[in-house]
Amino acid sequence: MSGIADTPEPPYYAVIFTTVRDGDKDYAATNDLMMGLATTQPGFLGVEGAGDGFGITVSYWRNRSDIAAWRDQADHALAQERGRSEWYATYCLRIAKVESDRNWRRNT
Amino acid sequence: MSGIADTPEPPYYAVIFTTVRDGDKDYAATNDLMMGLATTQPGFLGVEGAGDGFGITVSYWRNRSDIAAWRDQADHALAQERGRSEWYATYCLRIAKVESDRNWRRNT
Repeated sequence: MSGIADTPEPPYYAVIFTTVRDGDKDYAATNDLMMGLATTQPGFLGVEGAGDGFGITVSYWRNRSDIAAWRDQADHALAQERGRSEWYATYCLRIAKVESDRNWRRNT
Repeated sequence: MSGIADTPEPPYYAVIFTTVRDGDKDYAATNDLMMGLATTQPGFLGVEGAGDGFGITVSYWRNRSDIAAWRDQADHALAQERGRSEWYATYCLRIAKVESDRNWRRNT
């Protein structure tokens, strides 16, 4: 999740997950595991993440029912519970419909 | 821009700006200037940023015409031009309509 997600033509959905973290036991390993698991979910289109103590992760999905299915996936639900009890002081999760996008790359 | 944006009830808009940066001359100062200028724009609701070489900045707006006005603001247009010539190797800018959000904070 260290690059720009190669998403299809809009419309598609973005889950913007903004977090303030105050714990890190098993966090990195669990996060890696969840990112790997997300890629196997129906409707997953890509993910981008940046930051550490204050972090933003944006995952992209085909539609809202795919987002709901990922939210309810058993291993992910356990990780969310652990996030609330151990890792995150506060977070905001926003679900947004991407209407347009523009990719730019410098000519070299 | 080091915290979670205190946005109003949805719907509102998010501009998800994902960047790979390969230059930094005047970048931080210009970025600070633009963030300050954004807060004075009509329809600006908040901004969140994380990362450095790979960065995600999400700004929140009332509607798409406010986003277009900020895109066309003269100082911002100059900064965008400089971003393409000096700071960014590649970027993706997505405009998305936030349909729902959820804030969570640990009880202490």
